[in-house]
Amino acid sequence: MIVTVTPNPAVDVTYGLSEVRIGATLRPRRVDKRAGGKGVNVARVLHSLGEPVVALGIAGGANGDFIVRELGASGLANRFVPVVGECRQTVTLRAESDGSATIVNEPGPELSAGEWRACAETVAEALASARVLVLSGSLPPGAPADGYAELVRLAEHAGVPAILDTSGHPLAEGLAARPRLVKPNDAELAELPGSPDPGAVHRKYGCAVVTSYGAEGLLGVDDTGAWRARPPETVHGNPTGAGDACVAALARGLATGRPFAETLTEAVALSAAAVRAPLAGSVDLEYYRAIRARVTTHQVEA
Amino acid sequence: MIVTVTPNPAVDVTYGLSEVRIGATLRPRRVDKRAGGKGVNVARVLHSLGEPVVALGIAGGANGDFIVRELGASGLANRFVPVVGECRQTVTLRAESDGSATIVNEPGPELSAGEWRACAETVAEALASARVLVLSGSLPPGAPADGYAELVRLAEHAGVPAILDTSGHPLAEGLAARPRLVKPNDAELAELPGSPDPGAVHRKYGCAVVTSYGAEGLLGVDDTGAWRARPPETVHGNPTGAGDACVAALARGLATGRPFAETLTEAVALSAAAVRAPLAGSVDLEYYRAIRARVTTHQVEA
Repeated sequence: MIVTVTPNPAVDVTYGLSEVRIGATLRPRRVDKRAGGKGVNVARVLHSLGEPVVALGIAGGANGDFIVRELGASGLANRFVPVVGECRQTVTLRAESDGSATIVNEPGPELSAGEWRACAETVAEALASARVLVLSGSLPPGAPADGYAELVRLAEHAGVPAILDTSGHPLAEGLAARPRLVKPNDAELAELPGSPDPGAVHRKYGCAVVTSYGAEGLLGVDDTGAWRARPPETVHGNPTGAGDACVAALARGLATGRPFAETLTEAVALSAAAVRAPLAGSVDLEYYRAIRARVTTHQVEA
Repeated sequence: MIVTVTPNPAVDVTYGLSEVRIGATLRPRRVDKRAGGKGVNVARVLHSLGEPVVALGIAGGANGDFIVRELGASGLANRFVPVVGECRQTVTLRAESDGSATIVNEPGPELSAGEWRACAETVAEALASARVLVLSGSLPPGAPADGYAELVRLAEHAGVPAILDTSGHPLAEGLAARPRLVKPNDAELAELPGSPDPGAVHRKYGCAVVTSYGAEGLLGVDDTGAWRARPPETVHGNPTGAGDACVAALARGLATGRPFAETLTEAVALSAAAVRAPLAGSVDLEYYRAIRARVTTHQVEA
């Protein structure tokens, strides 16, 4: 069982518009609305691969009700801790005219100390049957800055490897607890104290580091060395959620004990398949199966 | 008691942003979320004036739950018919940099014939204690095109004057049932068969016609003649909801039997007070009281 944690889940609303003009009243041709947040997306991808997974998180207000109902309807096992504040939504305006995606990200609900504790307790319980713990996305206002560090330590204590995919303070604090793997992008590395490169993060914290270069693929560094994995072709589509598909592949690699280089190959193929799917959390499984033999992965200088 | 009907209510979400750039990820400084839709806004304004009012409408899905909860918390009496479909939301991106408001309007839920019937029955019941019926905004998909005409006839039958504030087909069909008052703007008149002027609509259907010219005030035509009402000064702010405040004043005028010209004066003052308030459905009551003596209303050629 892989356990994903989304401390700041969202209702993701995507409007399909012919064009976006500032100051206009826009009537969407298409409205997609579903539960999201990075950990939820990771869980969706794993579920679509047939991998046993449970999504944890918090749920508050009408948006929280929607998230829990929609995950249930999707057949995704979940345990969301009820909170008083209203869960956030994200709004994406997708314009056909120029292919642009304009995104509004709300901050999320203010958690009380008790609500965070209840969330951590739910994670601790789930670790009993977990093979990998995935910690994804932002922390909501009110969660402790070292919240992810606490969850990484719980996983460590239970003998479960933890993957951390976040940024800013929560990443810096979480690294100190030594997760098994982190997946920062360039900008997120640059924000860390001393702006370290992936190799430096690996040496300092002992964790595997997987860095995404978008359409150029991944760089992965772990005890076996540094590896570069590249997709066989440029994939056009929706990059939102590609990082979550990458994390899903990394989690599956850790859960099954697959070699690191092979896992990176899978991660590139699954990310590309996510770009081909219209919504974050979805992957084009046919494309994934078609291209994974054509992803090139080779060792490089660390 | 004034009864407002909002057949297509919404959760109105307003994001306060420093600027809006197409293709960017935007983090709002402020998120306002409340129940809306034109009839709900009219009811809010009347409630803030201390006028007895009940808001009717439909409520479905998580957005419907939010609407009913939020109206209850606002102390606004309401009877919303449960429906299966999800109520819509409107999203407004308000940019400080240029004062623009970019609005996304969802279409609303697909009503079944039975759901529309339940809605009409709730209106029929409420008419027993109503002095004025206000019908506002769009009809949701699935509602009959002559839905407003049916409600106008119910009001007529109960001896209750009906105000109709809508556009397109629902306005054209509703006019045939001869409401007491309609409030089309220029564009809405132009959409009617034959693009009639306000006087022609009055002569053809016997109803009072109040047309808004934005910052230039109102033109009203009824059996007492044609009247022009103008605000004393240009008001800067948020024009969304000014039309609903205007309708609130017109409903109060009908409910209290106030002369038409006086009602137009009130309507101009209340619209201007709505522009000064940040959200649709709110009015700056102090400003309203300060300027109503300075609104100028005089008879003009029809």
